[in-house]
Amino acid sequence: MIHRFEPTIYHPTLGSHDPALRIVDGDTVITTTVDAGGRDRFGNQVTQGGNAQTGPFYVEGAEPGDTVAVYFDRLWPNRTTGYTGTLVAPNVLHPYYVRATARALSEPPGLAEWQLDLDNGTATLVKPETKLGRFVLPLAPMLGCFGVAPPGGQAISTATSSTHGGNMDYKGFVTGTTVYFPVFVPGALLHVGDGHAVQGDGEIVGTGIETSFDVQFTVRLLKGKKSGWPRGENDRYIFTVGNARPLDEALQHATTEMVGWLQDDYGLDPVGAQILLGQCVEYEVGNVFDPAYTMVCKVAKKLLRSIA
Amino acid sequence: MIHRFEPTIYHPTLGSHDPALRIVDGDTVITTTVDAGGRDRFGNQVTQGGNAQTGPFYVEGAEPGDTVAVYFDRLWPNRTTGYTGTLVAPNVLHPYYVRATARALSEPPGLAEWQLDLDNGTATLVKPETKLGRFVLPLAPMLGCFGVAPPGGQAISTATSSTHGGNMDYKGFVTGTTVYFPVFVPGALLHVGDGHAVQGDGEIVGTGIETSFDVQFTVRLLKGKKSGWPRGENDRYIFTVGNARPLDEALQHATTEMVGWLQDDYGLDPVGAQILLGQCVEYEVGNVFDPAYTMVCKVAKKLLRSIA
Amino acid sequence: MIHRFEPTIYHPTLGSHDPALRIVDGDTVITTTVDAGGRDRFGNQVTQGGNAQTGPFYVEGAEPGDTVAVYFDRLWPNRTTGYTGTLVAPNVLHPYYVRATARALSEPPGLAEWQLDLDNGTATLVKPETKLGRFVLPLAPMLGCFGVAPPGGQAISTATSSTHGGNMDYKGFVTGTTVYFPVFVPGALLHVGDGHAVQGDGEIVGTGIETSFDVQFTVRLLKGKKSGWPRGENDRYIFTVGNARPLDEALQHATTEMVGWLQDDYGLDPVGAQILLGQCVEYEVGNVFDPAYTMVCKVAKKLLRSIA
Amino acid sequence: MIHRFEPTIYHPTLGSHDPALRIVDGDTVITTTVDAGGRDRFGNQVTQGGNAQTGPFYVEGAEPGDTVAVYFDRLWPNRTTGYTGTLVAPNVLHPYYVRATARALSEPPGLAEWQLDLDNGTATLVKPETKLGRFVLPLAPMLGCFGVAPPGGQAISTATSSTHGGNMDYKGFVTGTTVYFPVFVPGALLHVGDGHAVQGDGEIVGTGIETSFDVQFTVRLLKGKKSGWPRGENDRYIFTVGNARPLDEALQHATTEMVGWLQDDYGLDPVGAQILLGQCVEYEVGNVFDPAYTMVCKVAKKLLRSIA
Repeated sequence: MIHRFEPTIYHPTLGSHDPALRIVDGDTVITTTVDAGGRDRFGNQVTQGGNAQTGPFYVEGAEPGDTVAVYFDRLWPNRTTGYTGTLVAPNVLHPYYVRATARALSEPPGLAEWQLDLDNGTATLVKPETKLGRFVLPLAPMLGCFGVAPPGGQAISTATSSTHGGNMDYKGFVTGTTVYFPVFVPGALLHVGDGHAVQGDGEIVGTGIETSFDVQFTVRLLKGKKSGWPRGENDRYIFTVGNARPLDEALQHATTEMVGWLQDDYGLDPVGAQILLGQCVEYEVGNVFDPAYTMVCKVAKKLLRSIA
Repeated sequence: MIHRFEPTIYHPTLGSHDPALRIVDGDTVITTTVDAGGRDRFGNQVTQGGNAQTGPFYVEGAEPGDTVAVYFDRLWPNRTTGYTGTLVAPNVLHPYYVRATARALSEPPGLAEWQLDLDNGTATLVKPETKLGRFVLPLAPMLGCFGVAPPGGQAISTATSSTHGGNMDYKGFVTGTTVYFPVFVPGALLHVGDGHAVQGDGEIVGTGIETSFDVQFTVRLLKGKKSGWPRGENDRYIFTVGNARPLDEALQHATTEMVGWLQDDYGLDPVGAQILLGQCVEYEVGNVFDPAYTMVCKVAKKLLRSIA
Repeated sequence: MIHRFEPTIYHPTLGSHDPALRIVDGDTVITTTVDAGGRDRFGNQVTQGGNAQTGPFYVEGAEPGDTVAVYFDRLWPNRTTGYTGTLVAPNVLHPYYVRATARALSEPPGLAEWQLDLDNGTATLVKPETKLGRFVLPLAPMLGCFGVAPPGGQAISTATSSTHGGNMDYKGFVTGTTVYFPVFVPGALLHVGDGHAVQGDGEIVGTGIETSFDVQFTVRLLKGKKSGWPRGENDRYIFTVGNARPLDEALQHATTEMVGWLQDDYGLDPVGAQILLGQCVEYEVGNVFDPAYTMVCKVAKKLLRSIA
Repeated sequence: MIHRFEPTIYHPTLGSHDPALRIVDGDTVITTTVDAGGRDRFGNQVTQGGNAQTGPFYVEGAEPGDTVAVYFDRLWPNRTTGYTGTLVAPNVLHPYYVRATARALSEPPGLAEWQLDLDNGTATLVKPETKLGRFVLPLAPMLGCFGVAPPGGQAISTATSSTHGGNMDYKGFVTGTTVYFPVFVPGALLHVGDGHAVQGDGEIVGTGIETSFDVQFTVRLLKGKKSGWPRGENDRYIFTVGNARPLDEALQHATTEMVGWLQDDYGLDPVGAQILLGQCVEYEVGNVFDPAYTMVCKVAKKLLRSIA
């Protein structure tokens, strides 16, 4: 079944909020998200800033210990303007450089504005004036912040992330990707938000090209399937996601989850899984801006096909 | 001029050792390196283990404040056997998982052995017996540990890395890549070693496929060119390398070096450079095994061509 | 006014829960807390484990931007048994040591039991049998987890900590100490729990001597007084508390808060405050076990008296 | 035997330099150290800045696998002037605060000057003018940087620290303290330098009160005694020292070393040692300024007497 859901309430946390819509295994939802600042497709401020979430969507039958799969059928901006930060976040630069260069920038710049061409799939820098000129990038639309309700009665800010997902800001969360979340509460309570038309690794200026999105996703419920951290797959890779500080610990979580997954689902023994990872693992940096950083641990599917 | 240099002495540190050979700007050196365990192409133990280095090569005219460029003409194994670790290093896994699984592995496995087919460009896992079977990977030969003499009279172990390079274990250091090092001592004193036939991101089992190598490189001296950390480029990218713990700090060093480089050599202003990085930067993990971790900060050359 | 409050509901998060009691500036509350496992003074399991909180207490008139002060009149165990962990947490030991020693400990030990002599003020190790024998320590009762409701609609697990306080596990939170919290929500919503009869720095076995407590505290409301992180004072020190990972970042938060406090309330200029800290600051480690670590930054009051 | 040694050569690294003096077990050395900037008791610049070291002292019979003990008979400034940094290092403050406040401090302050009263044991701030006025602190003289030659042919900068000691900047290294170092090279090669008349925890302005020192120490050689990291003791405590980044890892090294020491020399079993540490360990922060941070793990001797 396909649901068209127009949000009217948005949430500043991922938590056990009242369900916005109840869906079942196999259902598809077509909905929208506001930009990180709380503005919708018309540029209207409809909620507060800070990655306000659409949802939550209650998946019938989902219970703690299950895994819920979210396939992104379509993620695409639904307006023609976006904005980004203009300075690399000070936690991403060397502290002495921050001190030295802060003195030089007498006037801290504000946000940059980008024009989005949704037909031709480009983003063009409109202001400020820099040596980049009218810099053009191909659109690569992704969701920065989404996930399920966390365990233990928590409501966790959309600024950060953990085992439940949240503000991971990984540029691999694009159309055609499936993301798996552990279920911590009945119904899983899926939230979506924070679309980026483009984003570099690390989200190091604190933003992607922030804009409102059309979001279409399809849910599957994997009863009795256990997982510990967000997982995902696309045509070429399976991947796991760790969220923590420092980045080392995010990498530990992602790698540990992958070592387990390779044994559980891909027929590998402990030593085989680790030899494989040793020579074949790939990492991608999600964000190094948010309170929890995000590291993605990837294994190419073609490697796994040779085993099974 | 092309020098053929057969090493007889190897060094366990990068330091101000007596020059093995004096070369000039534009010279090419054809030499060999032992494997990480100190064995040469014949499998003979010719020096101690621990990434023993060939060199150092004294670049005539190089002085502190210059930059030396090393182009890798050819990096290729020169024997048909290699070995790898079999367990993911405990600093790369979550501490509780390490404690829990260490109890289960009653007999810690030793090294894995790989057969290298140098003509067809493959590595095949020979032992131990795992579910991977005779797992085959394409060769992707790279140098794990190389660099120049560090400043201040230091001699720094080949186990670790810093501004002078060293044990960075980045799989991007392959044939066709140019690496730039700050010069800290007269002659720069270039060292090379630690060839890996294959390596995953992070070198998370503590090794790539370790083997002895043929190494051919060409040196250029960039007089008066300042740099702070290793830099590099290949056909598609320019990149910078940060070496430190935690990984966050390695990323800070690499990013800071790139912000400067974009301004110095690619005509960008401070804000333009940072907007560009914000939406376009790519990171790769060098190693997360050594005492200093390595993060690589990359910018695609095609982006820069649109500016200049 | 003195309130005697007997809790019947406990909370697994610090959040905007329904107030358990409404109090005003100057009021004193006498109440109890369960142990970390959810057991009360009679050893009865009255709620779930995980530092369940008594409260929240609504402070009339408290609004975001204010600071609330909590003076601990009396913190003392109210039963004669307590328990501790028996192994140093694996995140507190070197990863290679964890892997090596986990193999040796074939049977992971359970909890240790301690007898509390509340009249003579001692804790005696009862089991397991170790070379420590019946090891006796003086009681030093403190609260491990307490604080106010966090901002933005969050409900944050009692496992962790942030600007709102929470599971800081700092052994300095004893009778006679005043703790200051930023107010994030109307009424501040003070929670208390997780008494430790004794605790080492870092809470490195994951527990203090966990037991149920009698808690008496007096609240003051500092209208218009801004603060960013928990602060405190006792007879000899003022101190600030940073909660984050890694420990470096916890230290950054605590130090930054102190630099500001010295200027705001102790008449120091920026450079004077920093010279003072440079030669006089003292740090104490709260916990290095929880998801967020805790560092305490202290300045002796006698130093400040010489200035004002 | 008592040696009076007047240095003429100083070293910018701890390494396998030519011995300055050969001594035997039980010998005492009376010598001097320059300040961190390379100036001697007369204020003369006699060597380069950067914690230049006096020595090394060759301990006859010391071999890898032994431990060398250094008892500080007397550490005291030998001139009446000292200097400190005036700003908290940017790696010790929150990155956003660094960026924000750097803009405000248009003129970065230089060094502060202190007058040392060696008879009455005080340090008085002379300049700059701040609200601190002529701020007076009691002298607490300590050595910031000292240790033995590191292993593997390394020469490690006096800016940093590791298993061999080095720039640990721990304010507990005072007169009356014994420090134990692992021996990595024949003769151990003891270096001393970097006296601080006073220092706060963490050396957070990048300096203590830097001045030249009289140093008297007595050496003992513990043949066959193994150790992994610097250890120490004073009247009240035994302690271990970990040097690394982040601070978490320094703490891991120190704690792991202590867990072993308690078992090796204090008759504790693994679980007993860990229960003891859990409720009794104390930590002190050495430095959080240098490339490697320093954490000290302490156990009160009175606790150990009750066991043995």
